[in-house]
Amino acid sequence: KTAPAERVSPVEPLAAVPWHQLDRKHVLHANQFNKESLDMMFEEAIKMEKVRPRTPESKMLEGYIMSTLFYEPSTRTRLSFESAMSKLGGTVISTESAGEYSSAAKGETLEDTIRTVEGYADCIVLRHFQEGYAKRAASVAQIPIINAGDGPGQHPTQALLDVYTIKREVGRLENIKIGMVGDLLNGRTVRSLAYVLSLYPGLQVYFVAPPVVRMRDDIKELLTSRGVPWREVDDLREVAADVDVLYMTRIQKERFKDMQEYEQARGKYVINKELMKSMQKHAVVLHPLPRVDEIAEEVDGDPRSAYFRQARNGLFIRMAILKLAILGTQ
Amino acid sequence: KTAPAERVSPVEPLAAVPWHQLDRKHVLHANQFNKESLDMMFEEAIKMEKVRPRTPESKMLEGYIMSTLFYEPSTRTRLSFESAMSKLGGTVISTESAGEYSSAAKGETLEDTIRTVEGYADCIVLRHFQEGYAKRAASVAQIPIINAGDGPGQHPTQALLDVYTIKREVGRLENIKIGMVGDLLNGRTVRSLAYVLSLYPGLQVYFVAPPVVRMRDDIKELLTSRGVPWREVDDLREVAADVDVLYMTRIQKERFKDMQEYEQARGKYVINKELMKSMQKHAVVLHPLPRVDEIAEEVDGDPRSAYFRQARNGLFIRMAILKLAILGTQ
Amino acid sequence: KTAPAERVSPVEPLAAVPWHQLDRKHVLHANQFNKESLDMMFEEAIKMEKVRPRTPESKMLEGYIMSTLFYEPSTRTRLSFESAMSKLGGTVISTESAGEYSSAAKGETLEDTIRTVEGYADCIVLRHFQEGYAKRAASVAQIPIINAGDGPGQHPTQALLDVYTIKREVGRLENIKIGMVGDLLNGRTVRSLAYVLSLYPGLQVYFVAPPVVRMRDDIKELLTSRGVPWREVDDLREVAADVDVLYMTRIQKERFKDMQEYEQARGKYVINKELMKSMQKHAVVLHPLPRVDEIAEEVDGDPRSAYFRQARNGLFIRMAILKLAILGTQ
Repeated sequence: KTAPAERVSPVEPLAAVPWHQLDRKHVLHANQFNKESLDMMFEEAIKMEKVRPRTPESKMLEGYIMSTLFYEPSTRTRLSFESAMSKLGGTVISTESAGEYSSAAKGETLEDTIRTVEGYADCIVLRHFQEGYAKRAASVAQIPIINAGDGPGQHPTQALLDVYTIKREVGRLENIKIGMVGDLLNGRTVRSLAYVLSLYPGLQVYFVAPPVVRMRDDIKELLTSRGVPWREVDDLREVAADVDVLYMTRIQKERFKDMQEYEQARGKYVINKELMKSMQKHAVVLHPLPRVDEIAEEVDGDPRSAYFRQARNGLFIRMAILKLAILGTQ
Repeated sequence: KTAPAERVSPVEPLAAVPWHQLDRKHVLHANQFNKESLDMMFEEAIKMEKVRPRTPESKMLEGYIMSTLFYEPSTRTRLSFESAMSKLGGTVISTESAGEYSSAAKGETLEDTIRTVEGYADCIVLRHFQEGYAKRAASVAQIPIINAGDGPGQHPTQALLDVYTIKREVGRLENIKIGMVGDLLNGRTVRSLAYVLSLYPGLQVYFVAPPVVRMRDDIKELLTSRGVPWREVDDLREVAADVDVLYMTRIQKERFKDMQEYEQARGKYVINKELMKSMQKHAVVLHPLPRVDEIAEEVDGDPRSAYFRQARNGLFIRMAILKLAILGTQ
Repeated sequence: KTAPAERVSPVEPLAAVPWHQLDRKHVLHANQFNKESLDMMFEEAIKMEKVRPRTPESKMLEGYIMSTLFYEPSTRTRLSFESAMSKLGGTVISTESAGEYSSAAKGETLEDTIRTVEGYADCIVLRHFQEGYAKRAASVAQIPIINAGDGPGQHPTQALLDVYTIKREVGRLENIKIGMVGDLLNGRTVRSLAYVLSLYPGLQVYFVAPPVVRMRDDIKELLTSRGVPWREVDDLREVAADVDVLYMTRIQKERFKDMQEYEQARGKYVINKELMKSMQKHAVVLHPLPRVDEIAEEVDGDPRSAYFRQARNGLFIRMAILKLAILGTQ
């Protein structure tokens, strides 16, 4: 009766060595970051918001090269990274079809590709359709590998920008009540967000999802083990009135066997003007984008609609990551 | 009996607010520019011809980012814009497959894409296969949108570079006699050129086209309403001897039902050495390129063959537009 | 009984005017370079190894634009050139699908494309699937054309980086004993390498190849005419023990009619730990990459395995070429 679930990666243990203490600052999974790492990164990101053209800060990475090595296209993520590198004066060499990369087609291993491309760049942003490939790349690389999504695996910079946005919009990361809404079974973003947010005290989580795409047990167990209370709730309105953050995700038709069930779910988990009336004044709506129907355009003008600011925060987080990864933390 | 005509956009009214007075300098259609706007732009373009590497002028847009968002490939136009941005020290983030842009494929609206990408850039150069999409983009954008062609709609920077080339080659924009040759029914460039040139006093236009691809009435009416005398002429040689400018366009086979008619038209509207003998010394041949048979390679060396200089002028016009759009007109 | 051989270009005569004396420094084929040209280039390349971010050297090509015009993808080569340009502060405008370039699709000649694109750039790196196209491009270009591979024709920068690597790894170019191993019939790199290396005195060459893919007579005759002793040898081990350089290439299945013969060849011409034991201490293993089975990963850590350093040398050679081609040799 459950839908054919997309494979998602199992819960990753918290890294033994926190990110900011690594010699080579690969960014591979969301659970590499303890609170201290996040503090450092967010502090940098806030500075990045103030970088303007023709200032010394805007030339911080002058002469450094970032290679985007994408085995599947993801224009939004690629442009965000490329913009981040450019804003700091760095340059970009780019491929969106590394899959058809003649060398890969000729039977070259990922490891050999990395060993070659690292000769041309100071950092590699890797997107791959297969889980675990970022880790494989990092295992041989002499320069930082930044995982921009590896299939059902990780997309750590998305989680980081989500958490950064909560900090910027709500003003704190402690004592956050969050509602995660939509397809929680297959969504890689909500899983990673749970990792990172649960590092902060006072978190409370509501899962709001149609029965066929409920959050998996592994994340629930992670939360429980970290002392985070969570609840599965059916009524979005009830949750909306209580939370600081509503994190919306798309519900995909292809996850449903029963079309009636799909139509019901689709109509039920939608943010519109009516629903926003029940939300608190300081609360915000987030969405990893692209959105389709689950947030009505009529609420775009509401100051609590933070999803486009969230996308823009991706720029600042990536600027911070590139700076720290390439120049280090001295 | 008429060929299946490609849809072209209807005549656009002259913009109420001229371009150089806009707060946000979107470039959407050729009729946004009055003479004052054009004067300002052409003055900038002339300065752009003198920009050399390692001068302060070559760093005017340092730290600014242009995003090329192309929903269909147009390498020539893209490279021209990217070169323009680079010559002024700016950087480029680029996609040529925004159509397969995973977000668009997932059902994201153009408006949402613009709201996201504008977070990464200071100006967006948009190419789309659907008419009116540049205007739609501009309606939500906080940064300038530059239309690099939207289907059968507009391609305003092409018109601007055409007019600039006439100014540079003939030395004036008043009292120009121009022959427009080829497929005038479906050509978007000749239509836009008519808009802009007819702002200048003393214009005279000859339309030289096979019967099935004659210029539409709407443009003829526009010219008449602006007091511009125009004539349909069959004999290219007669026109060639009289004009200051011969503006050639390709005749496409697929517009003809009758292949004999096509072969006739093709043979008839061709510039070769023989024909150039009849042209005046100061006259020039223009072509939006790519050319196929309609200009024989044997005339490439003639100083009146200005089509490659015209392509290069696209660079200077686009440099001027980028400067004015990004830095403003202070 | 011979396999269906891929067409490779015939032996190119040594250029009448050596490269460093050309006014317009096109890089078209490996035989354009005499020893003096190579000395100059290698001297530049060594300097390039020391270029660091934020130094005056790293801004040498600031404000200059390189266009990569690729009619077939070759991500590795493209990224290498783009990195080289970036390391010197230059910018890149790039296309990997010039074949579908709407203009080419509309019937534009290569010559017209070059005449247009040269208006936007200071140098063009051209990759084409058809032999002789680099030369055709150069015949009309006002800016340097750099051949990044034209089908079965030339790929001169590969030969240059190979020779540079020998100089850097072995410490000299005179009195080199080299074994060329693998598919010598169809490999364009080994042919070009033979051209360039044979300019230096004391060269000795072993050809080690399965019968169906032996080196062609034309190169053997070139070597003989330049007084270079060469031998065809069957036993890789014997050669390995004697040479300064083992130059490995891939053996491609599709060259063989007899699969048993293929499997034999494949198993026979492989570098592994066992084989490296027989090599001299100062000798090195090179490979144009990508490698598949012909070099076992177990030898990657051996200091004599120089193939990834070789790939990186491509960067320095291309930096040197770009500097000399764009700024000249004053």
